[in-house]
Amino acid sequence: MKYPAGIKKSIKKDVYYGNRGMNLETDINVTNKYYLDNDIAVIHKKPTPITVNKVDYPSRIDAVITEAHYKIPSTTDYNGIYKGKYIDFEAKETKNKTSFPLSNIHKHQIAHLNAIIKHGGIGFIIVSFTTLNKLFLLKGEDLIAFIEERSRKSIPISYFEEKATILDYKFQPRIDYLKVVDNLYRGEFNEKFNIKN
Amino acid sequence: MKYPAGIKKSIKKDVYYGNRGMNLETDINVTNKYYLDNDIAVIHKKPTPITVNKVDYPSRIDAVITEAHYKIPSTTDYNGIYKGKYIDFEAKETKNKTSFPLSNIHKHQIAHLNAIIKHGGIGFIIVSFTTLNKLFLLKGEDLIAFIEERSRKSIPISYFEEKATILDYKFQPRIDYLKVVDNLYRGEFNEKFNIKN
Repeated sequence: MKYPAGIKKSIKKDVYYGNRGMNLETDINVTNKYYLDNDIAVIHKKPTPITVNKVDYPSRIDAVITEAHYKIPSTTDYNGIYKGKYIDFEAKETKNKTSFPLSNIHKHQIAHLNAIIKHGGIGFIIVSFTTLNKLFLLKGEDLIAFIEERSRKSIPISYFEEKATILDYKFQPRIDYLKVVDNLYRGEFNEKFNIKN
Repeated sequence: MKYPAGIKKSIKKDVYYGNRGMNLETDINVTNKYYLDNDIAVIHKKPTPITVNKVDYPSRIDAVITEAHYKIPSTTDYNGIYKGKYIDFEAKETKNKTSFPLSNIHKHQIAHLNAIIKHGGIGFIIVSFTTLNKLFLLKGEDLIAFIEERSRKSIPISYFEEKATILDYKFQPRIDYLKVVDNLYRGEFNEKFNIKN
């Protein structure tokens, strides 16, 4: 299992995978906190799945895990609710300049997004091309169509430029992806639950 | 942090917290797998939140966590989608015969359920009185009303008997809580997304 994003501070700086996906994850987490604090949406990152092998009990109320391993996630990282609608997405960074390698997303995560859409939810991916400083939101439907129609191992950036929507950085919310979701899924929301307005 | 449910097999049997909540969690997990396999709903347990302090890298692709701690969860354990609707719940066991101690549920989990309901989702708790062999589904609205109206530290079983719905055990799905949800939240679902029928 590769090393997941988000725990940079707790480990040595020279560790190989330590920096992966940290910035995008942080930006999305502060965005979700803004949405939560302002009663716009309730969207959380799921904890990283870990298999615990050994636990020590220095006292009855304190447990220290002394051996554990990272597990492959069976769903996407983020989900929640916005204007009465179920929202589900995965966020990935790539240093690649020409395409997004599909090895970044597990097959069962794609199956999960497909199931979410079938059951009436909104599913998408956010992809950051870090070297190009470009950030896209691609609908799950377009991700799945690409995978089903083509037998390629990566999605060329031209596909993102054609099908996806650019996400801009702002002061706050940092990455206002729900504004893009509003446009892309217009009419699917129950405005009765738009607490903000 | 107390010891969470679900990793019984990996630790010694005489550990104090090892058995807590294991059976209910297992029953709900197999129920959710049944719902997923039969295209009824997509509902998953969130991984237990863990803070990782130290990681060893025996090789570039394998990481071993050597020091970590359990974190207090900021949301409920289970969420997902059913007939186009966002579903969110917490499941708890108690050996108490007369009441359900509210110390079992963190304040921010109750705040989370409240936010979910405000944003148009369905939120509830499943409580197992293990000694009595009784299992209840209590709507989040009724949980929150009890907490707001009374300054008690536990919910008496009489409140469950009055307000909650009994859940029965079956061969499969093991605990068919969505059947109860169907009745309690009638009219809230978009039957267009009832893939099963």
